[in-house]
Amino acid sequence: MTDIEYMRIALSLASSVKGQTRPNPPVGSVVVKDNRIVGLGAHLKAGEAHAEVHAIQMAGNLAEGSDVYVTLEPCSHYGKTPPCANLLVEKKVKRVIIATTDPNPLVSGKGIEILQKAGIQVDVGVLQYEAHDLYEEFFYYITNKKPYVTLKTALTLDGKTAAFTGDSKWITGEEAREDVHRYRHTHDAILVGVNTVIQDDPSLTTRLPGGGGRHPIRIVLDHRLRTPIQSRLLTDGLSDVWIFTGSSVTEEQKLPFIEKGIRIFQLDQERINIKTMLHRLGEESITSLLVEGGSEVNGSFLKEHAFNQVIAYLAPKLIGGKHAPGFIGGEGFELMSEALQLEFRSVETLGNDIKIVAIPR
Amino acid sequence: MTDIEYMRIALSLASSVKGQTRPNPPVGSVVVKDNRIVGLGAHLKAGEAHAEVHAIQMAGNLAEGSDVYVTLEPCSHYGKTPPCANLLVEKKVKRVIIATTDPNPLVSGKGIEILQKAGIQVDVGVLQYEAHDLYEEFFYYITNKKPYVTLKTALTLDGKTAAFTGDSKWITGEEAREDVHRYRHTHDAILVGVNTVIQDDPSLTTRLPGGGGRHPIRIVLDHRLRTPIQSRLLTDGLSDVWIFTGSSVTEEQKLPFIEKGIRIFQLDQERINIKTMLHRLGEESITSLLVEGGSEVNGSFLKEHAFNQVIAYLAPKLIGGKHAPGFIGGEGFELMSEALQLEFRSVETLGNDIKIVAIPR
Repeated sequence: MTDIEYMRIALSLASSVKGQTRPNPPVGSVVVKDNRIVGLGAHLKAGEAHAEVHAIQMAGNLAEGSDVYVTLEPCSHYGKTPPCANLLVEKKVKRVIIATTDPNPLVSGKGIEILQKAGIQVDVGVLQYEAHDLYEEFFYYITNKKPYVTLKTALTLDGKTAAFTGDSKWITGEEAREDVHRYRHTHDAILVGVNTVIQDDPSLTTRLPGGGGRHPIRIVLDHRLRTPIQSRLLTDGLSDVWIFTGSSVTEEQKLPFIEKGIRIFQLDQERINIKTMLHRLGEESITSLLVEGGSEVNGSFLKEHAFNQVIAYLAPKLIGGKHAPGFIGGEGFELMSEALQLEFRSVETLGNDIKIVAIPR
Repeated sequence: MTDIEYMRIALSLASSVKGQTRPNPPVGSVVVKDNRIVGLGAHLKAGEAHAEVHAIQMAGNLAEGSDVYVTLEPCSHYGKTPPCANLLVEKKVKRVIIATTDPNPLVSGKGIEILQKAGIQVDVGVLQYEAHDLYEEFFYYITNKKPYVTLKTALTLDGKTAAFTGDSKWITGEEAREDVHRYRHTHDAILVGVNTVIQDDPSLTTRLPGGGGRHPIRIVLDHRLRTPIQSRLLTDGLSDVWIFTGSSVTEEQKLPFIEKGIRIFQLDQERINIKTMLHRLGEESITSLLVEGGSEVNGSFLKEHAFNQVIAYLAPKLIGGKHAPGFIGGEGFELMSEALQLEFRSVETLGNDIKIVAIPR
């Protein structure tokens, strides 16, 4: 097998744990000796062993003289666990193959330096583009100290997210809805506006086919703390709920929420500023945020240009209606020439629907 | 060359005249003798020679014993020209290859019968699916006696056709706009609501790259005859203008329009009924109609399920705005489960935009 083939296995190990390692990145590792895989590993949870540690452990005595494939540069600093670069030196591996270096200034290049100084051959860049895709959110978070934001929507072909009555069940087919749950599974947090909570009483949990899936932290933007105390979110106990409020909310108002274990993030401003909120989420180690609207919340993200990606599921349906809600409300830009320019990254068919991924230009 | 290759040439001749033969279908013909093309023809204009006549004429004496490829069954009735089937018999051709039969009850099967009775070999169905695509509008018109209706729109990714101010220049890029002009070129008529005329003062003519193109007949839905008499449509003299009005419009109101050569179609109802209007257009030999909105007009077509196809150009832009207009206004359906179900027929990239073609299921 080639370096590319072994690295593909390491990347697939990393992908499989995406979403469960916050705030760490998902990493996979494969140890190869005499053309046989002798160790496999992935980082499973922050605070626990890194991918290389698991893989080297599985390899046992065979680690000496082996080739170690790892999707991200081995760490060089003492965090919750000792540095992996040192472990690889100690185990006398022969060669380390790395998909991509780590932009984290605590790591970048230093892990490689330790390995090279110990006489280990280091090859960097095998399947690097695939690795950059995998680490897009994490690298953005590390560099900008705030989460990578994805706006997700489901639309009829005439651009509506519901009938004029508010009814929206269902716009897209099963395949598209499953796809959304995969995104929930891999995102640290999901965000909606309080109007969505009041109108739809959603659970915002992950329901993957076959059951299971990791639930994201559920975040509600709620200037005046109007979230109903009996809403599904606050009572199902399936995942944490964080509510962002404006400055006018009183301690008395907050009390019943705090008693239920809900975290309240009260901002200085009367209206929640999206950028301030995102920085607070960065401080809380939220690396990726899935925004599921409604349209006023999406309007705020658009106004602030505060997102990194749009995922739109387009259903082959026409609902019509001047007053039927659309993807992005708010005031909107005045002129078409002022519209935010995107670039379509991918367009694919998903069941009867079309999935479009776009990023700001 | 094979039958398929010759028929492809005939189909390309037919496609090249699509839009200029109303109310006749576009037809192409190729005459082959001893493995050489000896005649080519297309029907250029209603009332003039049919495709086979041109091709046989070009073949001259070589027509005898030749193979004649024709995209549509040769006619068998005396219309404005004598029947082509008889001409082919008279010229003693050996074989006639037909892409598709004609659903027109005046023709269907009868042309083939004449040929076969004269001992000519007839092969039907070569490239029939391509021919059905080409004749989709015409066959619909012949069968239903009303035009094939295409709703066309250009949308931002958030489903808007303009900013809240009404500004819409431009949503899509040049490639998509050129594509629209190709549709105008091949359509008998184009339709808008009077609000579009008042707001945008459009010309609704065809501007193909390199200049030229056939202008469709321009139709305005205008219940109360509010079309400004100085609007571009009424003054540029580039193509006919037909205005549909409701019953409340007076003779005096109509006079200045009639004096300008504008045709006024006054319906019995106060509000124009879309189905009544389409039947009137069928009576006027309009085989294909391109509807370019605005959103209230599109809402009426949706409500009546009175269209055959949707063409949406989706631009990589977000404009936002609760009050920015969308593709389809009106009241809309009450429940998502009542939405009109479509089927995506094709999704393709056009410059930076996406072109989506959908048909009702």
